[in-house]
Amino acid sequence: MEFIENGSILTPRGFSAGSAACGLKNGPETPDIALIVGEDKLSAAGVFTKNLFAAPPVLWCRAILPTDSLRAIAVNSGNANACNGQRGIKDTERMADIVAGLAGCRPVQVALASTGIIGRPLPLCKVEAGLRESYVSLSTDIRAARLAEKAIMTTDTRQKACAVSIRHGDVEAFIGGMAKGSGMIAPDMATMLAFITTDMSADAATLNDILSSCTKNTFNNINVDGDTSTNDSVFLAASGDSGLSLDNAAVRDRFCEALFALMRNLAIQIVSDGEGATKQIEIRACGCASQPDARLVAGSIANSLLVKCAINGEDPNWGRIICAAGYSGAGFAPDRVSLRLGDTLVVEDGCPTGKDASREMKSRMVKIEIDLGAGDEEATFWTCDISKRYVDINAEYTT
Amino acid sequence: MEFIENGSILTPRGFSAGSAACGLKNGPETPDIALIVGEDKLSAAGVFTKNLFAAPPVLWCRAILPTDSLRAIAVNSGNANACNGQRGIKDTERMADIVAGLAGCRPVQVALASTGIIGRPLPLCKVEAGLRESYVSLSTDIRAARLAEKAIMTTDTRQKACAVSIRHGDVEAFIGGMAKGSGMIAPDMATMLAFITTDMSADAATLNDILSSCTKNTFNNINVDGDTSTNDSVFLAASGDSGLSLDNAAVRDRFCEALFALMRNLAIQIVSDGEGATKQIEIRACGCASQPDARLVAGSIANSLLVKCAINGEDPNWGRIICAAGYSGAGFAPDRVSLRLGDTLVVEDGCPTGKDASREMKSRMVKIEIDLGAGDEEATFWTCDISKRYVDINAEYTT
Repeated sequence: MEFIENGSILTPRGFSAGSAACGLKNGPETPDIALIVGEDKLSAAGVFTKNLFAAPPVLWCRAILPTDSLRAIAVNSGNANACNGQRGIKDTERMADIVAGLAGCRPVQVALASTGIIGRPLPLCKVEAGLRESYVSLSTDIRAARLAEKAIMTTDTRQKACAVSIRHGDVEAFIGGMAKGSGMIAPDMATMLAFITTDMSADAATLNDILSSCTKNTFNNINVDGDTSTNDSVFLAASGDSGLSLDNAAVRDRFCEALFALMRNLAIQIVSDGEGATKQIEIRACGCASQPDARLVAGSIANSLLVKCAINGEDPNWGRIICAAGYSGAGFAPDRVSLRLGDTLVVEDGCPTGKDASREMKSRMVKIEIDLGAGDEEATFWTCDISKRYVDINAEYTT
Repeated sequence: MEFIENGSILTPRGFSAGSAACGLKNGPETPDIALIVGEDKLSAAGVFTKNLFAAPPVLWCRAILPTDSLRAIAVNSGNANACNGQRGIKDTERMADIVAGLAGCRPVQVALASTGIIGRPLPLCKVEAGLRESYVSLSTDIRAARLAEKAIMTTDTRQKACAVSIRHGDVEAFIGGMAKGSGMIAPDMATMLAFITTDMSADAATLNDILSSCTKNTFNNINVDGDTSTNDSVFLAASGDSGLSLDNAAVRDRFCEALFALMRNLAIQIVSDGEGATKQIEIRACGCASQPDARLVAGSIANSLLVKCAINGEDPNWGRIICAAGYSGAGFAPDRVSLRLGDTLVVEDGCPTGKDASREMKSRMVKIEIDLGAGDEEATFWTCDISKRYVDINAEYTT
């Protein structure tokens, strides 16, 4: 498996992308709608938010995916189309109708995603114009992928894309992806969207299994502020154009590994671009009695506002980390716990070592490793610090 | 039941308080150690943090309480004496020994509390000098109570005290309390301490039952930043000096009601003084299918950083509130949910009403009421907004 320089959703063959600026986000120049279209039918699967207020596009996709005959995915930013009652549901159906009309397929062959403000009706005239313009702009050129990456952004400051290649014998196949999300990120999906393409061939049920499994330790292990949203979705669509099939067990193993690496890469890109973030944080909980315990501890530390503020201030205040482990709900003996900040052991068998970890806090990537001394299970979470800029961004979002 | 103007822990009869500045906090003039001593034996109970890294003073108190023969409670701020291994345990025992020596009682008749930085050894010489000075300063004068309230503060900007009176026939009895805490506040206790005195008489087991029950809907329903600490403790001690006894069922009912009102008052004082807070937030979740569901919904909204930032910016961004309810884990049908900001109904049956709640966000106390339309249970939580000042305070705490 290799990472591809300047990779995108168009690195795999069999896909084109288009986008348009239809006025959903601020400024008429900012692209805010995107289309990904298969040359032919795509096998496709999705993983979605568990929020009870799941938005209509999420409900729509849950109904149509997995499928072996997807033709297009349409996305808009600037408006989440969430909490809009019956009107929201009709608007989502209408979006699928419009794309189906353009692509010459049935509405159930169109997947949808929306992200942005909750509780504002979707301006459907603008959306329709944007979808038509996006369709006209469809291209396999990398510039089309770059515009699509921009179109899905909300408070993101950077586009997020990645691609990897897999080789089997003489045949090379690809996986490409793009993602958005920088606030409201928490385990079990958050206001994040990810679109992953591949030119391998696979049935939808297989894609669904692999996507769910890879999501568990990638997008479900990131946290910016503990909030999960109404619209989070991860899509995986396969064109089959490479000729490589997941029916072959060796190919399938390589695909799983490559997809995991790509999703982990996108997940870390998301936390690195956390709203107002100045630092990236990797939290490894090891020596845990069970997987749920490992996730509880890493997740609790990743979610601690006090830990995130301390790291923002480059303060090696490890008491807050220990404290977050202590209230996580995981079971362990405090006097067997060790904690490292970077390479510095600050707590051993529950006691401070007295070593100064100030230098470890200066780096852009702060690593925390907590060993519970209770077993062999482990989990790794990624998060970012919380800065004054985060408060600024989120105190002024809709107004 | 009536609230007493300028009430304190010394409003009930049978108690004296003392304090000293022994150099645990910044500045030699700041009191950082306090003693509450009973004229005679006290019945006493406590409720403590559930954090696995519970500090030695918490472990000590869990072992000695409830008891019918408490003589004194000693508290220090500036140092939590948490995560200090065997030394921390020995230092706690030594604190009890010192107070016992001064008060002429056994160490197990002394309750202890510490709050402050985690993982720094307690400077026992300073503590010993402070305890001696506190003992010498013991007084029943209100000024002694005011100094004790100051001595327990950490990042608090204000002292927190309250007292209430109960009348039964011709007899009047009192309950008084003081509390500290302004960050790391979350359900199931947080970095908060509360000391409650009463001159009613009751056995320790009865006090324990009543204190646990009242804590559930007062101190366990407040949240500043979602973090719970290693040292949180709530104490209730009864002198019996009023002559009123909780053996009488009518008196007992009145006592429960008065204690609840006092604890609720102190709890709200804590969130009002949340680190960097500019607003107080009351969240009522009603129409819930069960008590756990009501607590999940109110707690999830109270813990949402996005909600707290929106309120800091006076932004009526109700989508974030709905969203936090949706990921709370409580069961309900989204299309039966209604939401009020202050008096303004912003969501009805899951749909936005289109009403503008901007004016409701201007007040110092923002009220949120969410009705799930799923049953008759309800819960009320209190919290505060998160401001840039919070990040400042918590990025620079130990350094």
